[in-house]
Amino acid sequence: MSSADEKTYDVVVLGAGSTGENVADVVVRGGLSAVLVEEHLVGGECSYYACMPSKALLRGTEAIAEARAVKGAAAAVTGEQDVAATLERRDSFTSNWDDAGQVSWVEGAGIDLLRGTARLDGERTVVVTGPDGTETRLSARHAVAVCTGSAAAVPPVDGLPDVQPWTPREATSAKEAPRRLLVIGGGYVGCEMSFAWNALGSTVTLLQRGDRLLPGAEPQAGDAVLASLRDRGVDVRLDADVTAARRDGDEVVLTVGTEELRGDEVLVATGREARTTGIGVETVGLEPGEYLDVDDTLQVRGLPWLYGVGDVNGRRQLTHMGKYQARQAAAAIVARARGEEVAVEDWSPYTATADRAATPAVVFTDPQVASVGLTSAQAREAGVPHRVVEYPIGSVAGASLFADGYEGTAIAVVDTSREVLLGVTFVGPAVAELLQAATIAVVGEVPISRLWHAVPAYPTVNEIWLRLLETWRG
Amino acid sequence: MSSADEKTYDVVVLGAGSTGENVADVVVRGGLSAVLVEEHLVGGECSYYACMPSKALLRGTEAIAEARAVKGAAAAVTGEQDVAATLERRDSFTSNWDDAGQVSWVEGAGIDLLRGTARLDGERTVVVTGPDGTETRLSARHAVAVCTGSAAAVPPVDGLPDVQPWTPREATSAKEAPRRLLVIGGGYVGCEMSFAWNALGSTVTLLQRGDRLLPGAEPQAGDAVLASLRDRGVDVRLDADVTAARRDGDEVVLTVGTEELRGDEVLVATGREARTTGIGVETVGLEPGEYLDVDDTLQVRGLPWLYGVGDVNGRRQLTHMGKYQARQAAAAIVARARGEEVAVEDWSPYTATADRAATPAVVFTDPQVASVGLTSAQAREAGVPHRVVEYPIGSVAGASLFADGYEGTAIAVVDTSREVLLGVTFVGPAVAELLQAATIAVVGEVPISRLWHAVPAYPTVNEIWLRLLETWRG
Repeated sequence: MSSADEKTYDVVVLGAGSTGENVADVVVRGGLSAVLVEEHLVGGECSYYACMPSKALLRGTEAIAEARAVKGAAAAVTGEQDVAATLERRDSFTSNWDDAGQVSWVEGAGIDLLRGTARLDGERTVVVTGPDGTETRLSARHAVAVCTGSAAAVPPVDGLPDVQPWTPREATSAKEAPRRLLVIGGGYVGCEMSFAWNALGSTVTLLQRGDRLLPGAEPQAGDAVLASLRDRGVDVRLDADVTAARRDGDEVVLTVGTEELRGDEVLVATGREARTTGIGVETVGLEPGEYLDVDDTLQVRGLPWLYGVGDVNGRRQLTHMGKYQARQAAAAIVARARGEEVAVEDWSPYTATADRAATPAVVFTDPQVASVGLTSAQAREAGVPHRVVEYPIGSVAGASLFADGYEGTAIAVVDTSREVLLGVTFVGPAVAELLQAATIAVVGEVPISRLWHAVPAYPTVNEIWLRLLETWRG
Repeated sequence: MSSADEKTYDVVVLGAGSTGENVADVVVRGGLSAVLVEEHLVGGECSYYACMPSKALLRGTEAIAEARAVKGAAAAVTGEQDVAATLERRDSFTSNWDDAGQVSWVEGAGIDLLRGTARLDGERTVVVTGPDGTETRLSARHAVAVCTGSAAAVPPVDGLPDVQPWTPREATSAKEAPRRLLVIGGGYVGCEMSFAWNALGSTVTLLQRGDRLLPGAEPQAGDAVLASLRDRGVDVRLDADVTAARRDGDEVVLTVGTEELRGDEVLVATGREARTTGIGVETVGLEPGEYLDVDDTLQVRGLPWLYGVGDVNGRRQLTHMGKYQARQAAAAIVARARGEEVAVEDWSPYTATADRAATPAVVFTDPQVASVGLTSAQAREAGVPHRVVEYPIGSVAGASLFADGYEGTAIAVVDTSREVLLGVTFVGPAVAELLQAATIAVVGEVPISRLWHAVPAYPTVNEIWLRLLETWRG
């Protein structure tokens, strides 16, 4: 260890995904020095294996469906999607899994980048082993931010690890559609990938352990996505418990109840686990494999110099929430480095309050599911006095103009004591862009009485806001 | 007059467009009796001659363009729009100009409907002449609401009235595309109709008197629409002053400078005028042809029993703002009828504050223009301390996923003393549905510091919100 290169920075960031990049960027803008340590691709899961490629796989199918849903326009859509071109487009969004563009952004932002694997070695110290085996010992004057993210969790099914299942990484980066794709898990990744590969030519079977898809969302969401997947020919099985997996030649064979299902690939999309193994957390008294336990400023409890930001803390595993946490944590790091007071109350510039109160999420299936804040079930569990208001989006003039036979639902959960929105869910074609209005209403705690003045432009789909208010008024 | 039928209602509403319908609906829900008087179609301009048919004419073109903008999907769009099917779809949105559906809604809402022409005959009195010549004398216990709207204004150009120009009515209801369409006026109607008929097969020439299209919007909006119309082959002429018009056989001939332009139809889209002629306003001391001068509760100044709601007051001539005014005015009418206090301060349940502070408007061209609140020019004129923040929408990941080569601009006008948004304009494909978020932010006066917590879902076009905030922070 004596031969190791030694360097000191104000802030050492483990992991150069979008979360780590944002932590480093904001602390550097705040006048601190920062180094990013990355063992794989700068830019992280989102850029190469999640949001970007998955949405690129889905967008062509969506655009075609939208044109087909308009009488007059439908006549123009006489051909089929060019799958090779869609895959090529997906590749361009991942820069063909080359991170040169991201690296040049990091350099331009005044952030140092160190390639290699990082592990904590006691307080404020990180040892990096480079690709050539050289070690660098990093000392952090103010903070170490762990932004190592999460990895796909493979459930304890007999034989499953041995069949080399697809994780979301392989599902989003596959070079061609498998003939038969088995999908384990009916959360948003399972639903999106079933939708995408079905449209791109695979015969898809989706196996969901519970009795509903998208179990965390309002039930109308899972029901609508289920109906749509089945309409499109996806074989969706609910209450399907996979008990064993094996390879038979080129085939994957899954045991589900008394049945054997055969496919060419199997995607496991049953959840994530913290990437806290092999990074030395045990040298500072933490448990490898556990999520980092952080407060609202993303500071690890009991270790004021250590921050856990993004997927690694298990609060909200979404790219945009990781970036949000990054901004809040970095602001706290900068303020504390300056000896300034860090306000820890809700909605301060240093707290990730939206993690609890207003996390937006979109499932890019058809229909899309866009939600923010509390669902009706969550409001019930939290014991908040509330009323649920629902309205069919297809009855809004703007929606019927958008697509013939538009079907969708909007669900608002209203706090009846404060008369503010606790949460909103939209289910329907192209509802993703409706969400920000709900997010601002929830985060801004805009009273219902004021929302009446936020007139939706006619005839847009957003007229759903007026219909929800009218339904609320009764 | 002695033989006239006489009836008394709590509220008499002149004009059964969407504004009049909403006034009547809300007062009836408030326990008052109401009659709607209509001489033409129940449902008004919007349903038959404006929003609905114009958007139906435009939507097919838009959906096709959106699919063509996605590599992979573009391959499926090998045909052309079926113009006859698009016109048929338009006809279905106007119910083939049959108002039976609207009439049955009126009846179901417990509102009386009287067909005929109405004229005021002194305080609280309206005389209606039915289609068969019979007269009905209506007395209003509490209020008369004039919701007669506006009509297309034909500018004083020599010979123009005699060539039987199209107004927006004919432009939205035409049964086929004219071979050559001349359009006078580069506001939102002129731009939308140029866009629509060009796509449906007409050769279009658009004549704008000023040096910019959409003169009320941020200049980037008019510039982008101008470039797009020209790209699509519309002959747009700025600073084009039409000095004379005549018919030459089936042709219309316009004199513009030293040139003569020939077309098969000419659309005049140069503005609106109040429909206050022939409705007896002179019997209560008002001037026919003038807009009704109202306060924020839409009460005509000096005549507490008379309300002017919607286009007829000239405040904001948009369907959704007419309906908004209707809700506020009707709430005031009901409260005053009950002898309750009517709060006249901003954002009360009785005042149409958004008319001044937060009127949303969308131009459904490609690019679309969606705006709310103050433009930078209006903030400057109002002397409000402000800063303008601008960001190219195409640089947002969600936009590049939506369409290859997405081009657009977002412009936010921020009040630098209160640190709230005064106005926002989006220019780009499919930005219409982004607008409600801005409307809620402006109306809710949500502080910039709180908007940082309104995290946009990644990767949606709404990530523009984060980029605007980052640009604001600098």
